[in-house]
Amino acid sequence: MTGPADAVRVAVVGATGYAGAELARLLARHPKVDLTVVTSEQSAGKALGDVLPSFRRKLDLRLEAFDPARVAARCDVAFTALPSGKSGGGIAMLLDHGVRVVDIGADFRFRDPSEHARVYGPHPVPALLGEAVYGLTEHARAALRGARLVANPGCYPTAALLAIVPLAEAGLVESGGIIIDAKSGVTGAGRTVAAEYLFAEVDDNLRAYKIGEHRHAPEIEQQLRPFLGAEVAVTFVPHLLPIRRGILSTVYVRPRAGVDFGAFAKAFESRYGSERFVVLTGVRPPEIRDVVGTNDCAIGWALDAKSRIAVVVSVIDNLGKGAAGQAIQNLNAMMGWPEPWGLDHLAVVP
Amino acid sequence: MTGPADAVRVAVVGATGYAGAELARLLARHPKVDLTVVTSEQSAGKALGDVLPSFRRKLDLRLEAFDPARVAARCDVAFTALPSGKSGGGIAMLLDHGVRVVDIGADFRFRDPSEHARVYGPHPVPALLGEAVYGLTEHARAALRGARLVANPGCYPTAALLAIVPLAEAGLVESGGIIIDAKSGVTGAGRTVAAEYLFAEVDDNLRAYKIGEHRHAPEIEQQLRPFLGAEVAVTFVPHLLPIRRGILSTVYVRPRAGVDFGAFAKAFESRYGSERFVVLTGVRPPEIRDVVGTNDCAIGWALDAKSRIAVVVSVIDNLGKGAAGQAIQNLNAMMGWPEPWGLDHLAVVP
Amino acid sequence: MTGPADAVRVAVVGATGYAGAELARLLARHPKVDLTVVTSEQSAGKALGDVLPSFRRKLDLRLEAFDPARVAARCDVAFTALPSGKSGGGIAMLLDHGVRVVDIGADFRFRDPSEHARVYGPHPVPALLGEAVYGLTEHARAALRGARLVANPGCYPTAALLAIVPLAEAGLVESGGIIIDAKSGVTGAGRTVAAEYLFAEVDDNLRAYKIGEHRHAPEIEQQLRPFLGAEVAVTFVPHLLPIRRGILSTVYVRPRAGVDFGAFAKAFESRYGSERFVVLTGVRPPEIRDVVGTNDCAIGWALDAKSRIAVVVSVIDNLGKGAAGQAIQNLNAMMGWPEPWGLDHLAVVP
Amino acid sequence: MTGPADAVRVAVVGATGYAGAELARLLARHPKVDLTVVTSEQSAGKALGDVLPSFRRKLDLRLEAFDPARVAARCDVAFTALPSGKSGGGIAMLLDHGVRVVDIGADFRFRDPSEHARVYGPHPVPALLGEAVYGLTEHARAALRGARLVANPGCYPTAALLAIVPLAEAGLVESGGIIIDAKSGVTGAGRTVAAEYLFAEVDDNLRAYKIGEHRHAPEIEQQLRPFLGAEVAVTFVPHLLPIRRGILSTVYVRPRAGVDFGAFAKAFESRYGSERFVVLTGVRPPEIRDVVGTNDCAIGWALDAKSRIAVVVSVIDNLGKGAAGQAIQNLNAMMGWPEPWGLDHLAVVP
Repeated sequence: MTGPADAVRVAVVGATGYAGAELARLLARHPKVDLTVVTSEQSAGKALGDVLPSFRRKLDLRLEAFDPARVAARCDVAFTALPSGKSGGGIAMLLDHGVRVVDIGADFRFRDPSEHARVYGPHPVPALLGEAVYGLTEHARAALRGARLVANPGCYPTAALLAIVPLAEAGLVESGGIIIDAKSGVTGAGRTVAAEYLFAEVDDNLRAYKIGEHRHAPEIEQQLRPFLGAEVAVTFVPHLLPIRRGILSTVYVRPRAGVDFGAFAKAFESRYGSERFVVLTGVRPPEIRDVVGTNDCAIGWALDAKSRIAVVVSVIDNLGKGAAGQAIQNLNAMMGWPEPWGLDHLAVVP
Repeated sequence: MTGPADAVRVAVVGATGYAGAELARLLARHPKVDLTVVTSEQSAGKALGDVLPSFRRKLDLRLEAFDPARVAARCDVAFTALPSGKSGGGIAMLLDHGVRVVDIGADFRFRDPSEHARVYGPHPVPALLGEAVYGLTEHARAALRGARLVANPGCYPTAALLAIVPLAEAGLVESGGIIIDAKSGVTGAGRTVAAEYLFAEVDDNLRAYKIGEHRHAPEIEQQLRPFLGAEVAVTFVPHLLPIRRGILSTVYVRPRAGVDFGAFAKAFESRYGSERFVVLTGVRPPEIRDVVGTNDCAIGWALDAKSRIAVVVSVIDNLGKGAAGQAIQNLNAMMGWPEPWGLDHLAVVP
Repeated sequence: MTGPADAVRVAVVGATGYAGAELARLLARHPKVDLTVVTSEQSAGKALGDVLPSFRRKLDLRLEAFDPARVAARCDVAFTALPSGKSGGGIAMLLDHGVRVVDIGADFRFRDPSEHARVYGPHPVPALLGEAVYGLTEHARAALRGARLVANPGCYPTAALLAIVPLAEAGLVESGGIIIDAKSGVTGAGRTVAAEYLFAEVDDNLRAYKIGEHRHAPEIEQQLRPFLGAEVAVTFVPHLLPIRRGILSTVYVRPRAGVDFGAFAKAFESRYGSERFVVLTGVRPPEIRDVVGTNDCAIGWALDAKSRIAVVVSVIDNLGKGAAGQAIQNLNAMMGWPEPWGLDHLAVVP
Repeated sequence: MTGPADAVRVAVVGATGYAGAELARLLARHPKVDLTVVTSEQSAGKALGDVLPSFRRKLDLRLEAFDPARVAARCDVAFTALPSGKSGGGIAMLLDHGVRVVDIGADFRFRDPSEHARVYGPHPVPALLGEAVYGLTEHARAALRGARLVANPGCYPTAALLAIVPLAEAGLVESGGIIIDAKSGVTGAGRTVAAEYLFAEVDDNLRAYKIGEHRHAPEIEQQLRPFLGAEVAVTFVPHLLPIRRGILSTVYVRPRAGVDFGAFAKAFESRYGSERFVVLTGVRPPEIRDVVGTNDCAIGWALDAKSRIAVVVSVIDNLGKGAAGQAIQNLNAMMGWPEPWGLDHLAVVP
């Protein structure tokens, strides 16, 4: 794999997890990227295509153990896709060596070290939390341009925030009573080898989990606070779907008194009308499959007239816009490149 | 198929639809039922096992066209499982001939003819609406005992009402802001041959549909009105899951001021503690697969402490407790038989 | 759980694996069985319904560690469902204590210790191999009646042998060129927590595995040798399906010279025409779903006229007729009970 | 959608079927194609993105009814993706207008009109059958270069022939006893709205169909005759998998006397070693998912030593290499373009 002469050299740290492999898949076809390093602790030394056969004859790279100095010698940018709590130290070293970092993990999403500590435990390099840019691309461009360190949003927060932020910004919704009923495919849990993710346990089944306890709820609240105030408290209930990829988020919000429902469409259109990766579907709710394999977020909305509760439905691919896709979109924004580079896919339907 | 000498003779009208076939499957093993008639307009004249191979060598019956008089001559009770709007006239004739009826369809669920008209169109025999017993068994036993005509609840209403009614009865929840985010397998739509239900359209996908427009919302409201008042308005959003059977209903309710959350557990336990077909799972939310193929409803609940919104999760098999199972439970209640007769199954897991 | 006064007391050793749990599900409703002991090394001390929620309120038993003497004190018959190589010693002790045993595992399927050793490694109690009855029920009744130890056939061998044995017995097929292209749901691998069985790896996928190397091929050959001679060599290729339960076996055989194809139907009908658990579907090939959750094997056949190769398609539930169902059928045969006791189910379709 | 100045203008006739939509998806990103016409009889007049939402904001085209003259006025090449028997006349007119045609349908696959008539019925323009090039690209390049009319192979034949032809060419296998046990996802049947393709009928199920009667068997035999002689007769058994896309073909062949199995690897490597769209996996059998969404065919092989039967496993995406992908590969070959243009995808895994 060799890119053009002016290509940016890129590493994927943790390339055999689901999000890491998706990064490699996308970066292998990015017009200005030279993917030079892929790491895996478990499979170091093996050819990527021997571990993940879909890369065979497509991407000729050998997996190596993660060594920040060795990565820095050969890369300008690193994507880190490690389990939460595992990337802090390595990222600090990469930054020290002058490598810019987009972290797919959860280690730099909270601005406030005490909030991070409460949700994930003490942070190894709390000083960096203030610098990290929360990379919800459509809402973070100015900060992304010069960023050294980008915290890629969680998959659930991406789907929820893209649906709520335009309404909150425009002052259309109450800060109370926001309910996010989210449904995710199993790759949201990564390549976790646990009985609960076996085919025989997931197929033809559905379950809610971590009701009121999921770590993505405070992440969502942090991002809504600038618009809805300190007291914002979302009710977040995730469900595990028998599908591989995709999140559908059904968000229930209360329009503020006097708000006309037409204002919802206006808010979405003015915010996202010229966005390449947001598809507005109006009253026809979007389906998960139309975004799988892409970096798109599709959003539809309706008002339940009798109860005066507004329903916003958003869908993303949790490994696309919810992880690897948005990470590359953030790279493009950091570099000042056109955002669709490497991301201009149509969903494989059906 | 011949039952014991004192068996009740039963017909299934519309036996080749999904709910009708489930009725036949269950009735074929009911200890006091002699299933004598199965009807199908499309397949009249064929052996049931030639149309539905899982019955081959298990239930030796020939399908026939529906003729109320011929049914009445050979049956004491009829289960009608016809598309909405198709069963009114036939049921009236069955009743005239002295046949007791449990209607799986939607034709007798509304008490008020004008509400029926608004949701489904004018009713052919509105006079019968007042007589029909709404057969949410656990909440309708007294009325069921002598009933001539039972309206089996819709699948979504069954899952939602079993979760909400105990809380509403006990005065624990506000009448406003009730949100029902429901997810159903495809058999909820019956054996509808339409492109949207093809495997290639449903697999690995999820979509919301009929937001704020589904006919089951007013059915739910009708049943909650006695407890929550005329102004009750639920926000009901159904979703189509890539599974065959099962509904998971995530219900969001607001506890009334001063209500301690412990009261929720008490309400469920006092109402359902000795019910054979309600399984309380407490804070561990129930999963769809544990009730598939059974007549069970499993219910769990949690409080989102920060937002003070209570989350109740209920699961049923839409063809079991949501249709055929509850219909047979209603038959048992009508006859004064033990309710588990013919329904005492363990789910086939995994 | 208490059965009738004359009930046989039964243990399931290894009750939390998929086959063990299926045994418990079926035995819990068997009219002459009192299921008294369920064991699990990992979950000893827990209530069965806390580990496997589908048993909650249905079967009130506590899991215990396997102790042959303690099992013998409370049981007449034990079903052992342990990984291969794990049950030999325990079974010997159970037999010594006078407990009759049906082994769902693979430890007693070979008659010849050297063949067992070649396939599975040295046998701990080779002397017992000669005594064990290979429990392909329809073809083993005489031997089953008095048996102390029954080796339940493997899932793939059950599907294949039920299709081939009647043809081999009747002298209709050549001993060479028998090809078994088998497709199995994931529960065939048991509750194995390995990456290859994760939902994300199995869903919407298919793969062949262990071509020419699967341990079930010599098991099949052992059972065909009496009819086809020592030189019989089957080509066996298993495939992993994205379904939970079920095996479909497509068997290709060469009719002997001069054999009329009508003889195939005659052979199947004369052998299985009055069998309760074999459904002959003629030229309409059977589907997996029609036997899931049951003890049935459905068999269809066709002749490819031009190539003169006969195709026999058989389907079973790998946890039913391929494991727990057949084990209970064998219990019934051992006891002289009617074979359908506890097994008289209709498949849950769809 | 506008391509570069020297782009070839292309039509997709039948763009809303599954294969047609896949053509549109791929052509929309082809570097030298200007997709100018998409037709649909049912949806003429609608925007493509309103009928197929995954195209929304990606491909701004309006569907139109198929009119050969109007297509010819705006296109250099047409892909026809119509049901069998529907494309003959239209294709003749397109050719008369100077449009080159790649037919995804089945109308031009047989060279011999009488064979076509026997399998599909009389051909409307039999004179064209002799001209059509059977576009199994890797085995047809010389003929493709100047072709006016290309018959794209069937999906099952593509998977089977890519596995068998190299062995037949090299004289390694007997002409008798070739068995093709094929398993296909449901999109192989197109967007056929029939009960048998409903989610509830296909999910968690498997069935064989058209044993010895499928139209793809004579198509395979036609292509093998040059190597194996007139008497070649394959036994072809297709199965319907519960997946959306993909075919796995398990092919059983008998090595000729004296053939060393090492010759199999050599034959595959010498034939396909430098092919971009054939991936040889050796003894590790390929999986369907590694080719879904791509134009790849992956092939593995093994010898069952005892029975001396060789097993070749090939996988393709039935809508990719089995339809739209190979059609575009054929376009590239016709134009003398690099074959990977527009097809250089990595599979979306998992």
